[in-house]
Amino acid sequence: MAKKSDLDDFRVPFFDAGKKVKPFDLTSVDPAAKPFSSGTKDGDRAQLAAIGVQLDELQEKLHAQRRQRVLLVLQGMDTSGKDGTVRAVFQNVDPLGLRIVPFRAPSEREAAHDFLWRVHAQAPMAGELAIFNRSHYEDVLVPRVLGTIDKDECERRYRHIREFESLLADTGTTIVKCFLHISKDTQRERLQARIDDPTKHWKFDVSDLEARKQWDDYQSAYADALAATSTDYAPWFVIPADSKTHRNVMVAELLLRTMQGMNLEYPPAKEALKGVKVE
Amino acid sequence: MAKKSDLDDFRVPFFDAGKKVKPFDLTSVDPAAKPFSSGTKDGDRAQLAAIGVQLDELQEKLHAQRRQRVLLVLQGMDTSGKDGTVRAVFQNVDPLGLRIVPFRAPSEREAAHDFLWRVHAQAPMAGELAIFNRSHYEDVLVPRVLGTIDKDECERRYRHIREFESLLADTGTTIVKCFLHISKDTQRERLQARIDDPTKHWKFDVSDLEARKQWDDYQSAYADALAATSTDYAPWFVIPADSKTHRNVMVAELLLRTMQGMNLEYPPAKEALKGVKVE
Repeated sequence: MAKKSDLDDFRVPFFDAGKKVKPFDLTSVDPAAKPFSSGTKDGDRAQLAAIGVQLDELQEKLHAQRRQRVLLVLQGMDTSGKDGTVRAVFQNVDPLGLRIVPFRAPSEREAAHDFLWRVHAQAPMAGELAIFNRSHYEDVLVPRVLGTIDKDECERRYRHIREFESLLADTGTTIVKCFLHISKDTQRERLQARIDDPTKHWKFDVSDLEARKQWDDYQSAYADALAATSTDYAPWFVIPADSKTHRNVMVAELLLRTMQGMNLEYPPAKEALKGVKVE
Repeated sequence: MAKKSDLDDFRVPFFDAGKKVKPFDLTSVDPAAKPFSSGTKDGDRAQLAAIGVQLDELQEKLHAQRRQRVLLVLQGMDTSGKDGTVRAVFQNVDPLGLRIVPFRAPSEREAAHDFLWRVHAQAPMAGELAIFNRSHYEDVLVPRVLGTIDKDECERRYRHIREFESLLADTGTTIVKCFLHISKDTQRERLQARIDDPTKHWKFDVSDLEARKQWDDYQSAYADALAATSTDYAPWFVIPADSKTHRNVMVAELLLRTMQGMNLEYPPAKEALKGVKVE
């Protein structure tokens, strides 16, 4: 298994209120890198299955203990593999213990509230592992690129996000955030594959190609957001994601490490049940 | 694969408002029967995996189409295997397309509403497959056995349930309901196994043994409820569930049959994407 120190190499440095925030340099991480890969796809799949069994055990203890909470946030450009990650990482985990929350464009009612309102409502409860497939981070990406919020508003949102995540963390939620990092070339290949397969058109809208034209603006918005919101209580990790199997293994390893650090144990046996014979 | 007619043998006759409702005779179905079993556990597991792949495809089409909805209701006595069924039947289905809704004792806020309020809020939306792990049926079981509602109120609730399910069905939801049928002996063995394993105590409360003492009352409450609420738009099936692998295969077959009857197809290809080359 990967050492914690290896994973830490992919952690975005923590925000420091006392210093000027520099955007995280995404070009410093090669999307095609496979640092957590076993070297072969089959090896990666076996590794993923083995981690899955451990995640399943930890998730059962989380559920049994019903005290702590886990929140995994997945972000990334279109086709970066958020859906595929969920499916692969949790293939061996009991679906009863998971709650997957997809965030789409806000509804009229949601948009009539502050941007964290609908997110707070979906925060994991005691014993739950919640996975945000997109998240409140969309609100510092899309409007920033489209220019519907200015720099000051964006900075305020970064602060509100830090404070919101601090509330969750202080009240028992362990948070880990993954940016699935792909190259522009990889996105082209994956978008083209969707276009070329009519059964994949439902996943796709012509407007998705507009976002691709703003690739650099989105990378820049991510660079700022990651730097401004990576904290010791809610760190961001940059996951090289051009290789799907590597991406899956790395996210799984990260979550495994995180949950192993939570002291998850079954609650003590109940005295009242000791020696009871069922009639 | 099982023929539809075989499954229909385990369907509770439809409620007929014009006739006096007779309780469904649960003793007519042997909980130890394995009519859908291949004969061996390994064979059953292989069958289950094969059905799972088909369910996964159908679920993706359901999700892609985003028009119809599916609701699977699981009910049964303690240890009848509701959790285990979810895990086994959906092992190959993308967790992104599932929503599993466990119903526990109502909260104070929930209890301050009518009994279907919290249930309606959890109904599947377009493209979703929702699984109710316990359901609104608890409200015609527990209070009936405890005597906190009288016969008239129970009859009114049956009617409200039929009407509520009719609303869901008329507006695009395909409903299938499973009663996981175990013997009293099987329950004893399973409860004892939980007591004997301290890591299982969290699933267990001493009060669960009280419900067991009222086994016959619960069977009788089920017999009435099944008969009063099995309809062509929301049928009840009695699943012999002493064998876990048989139970899983039969629920999976039933769901497969149901979804195969829904004309699920990918939406048509988008003209606007035809021949598009991504830059």
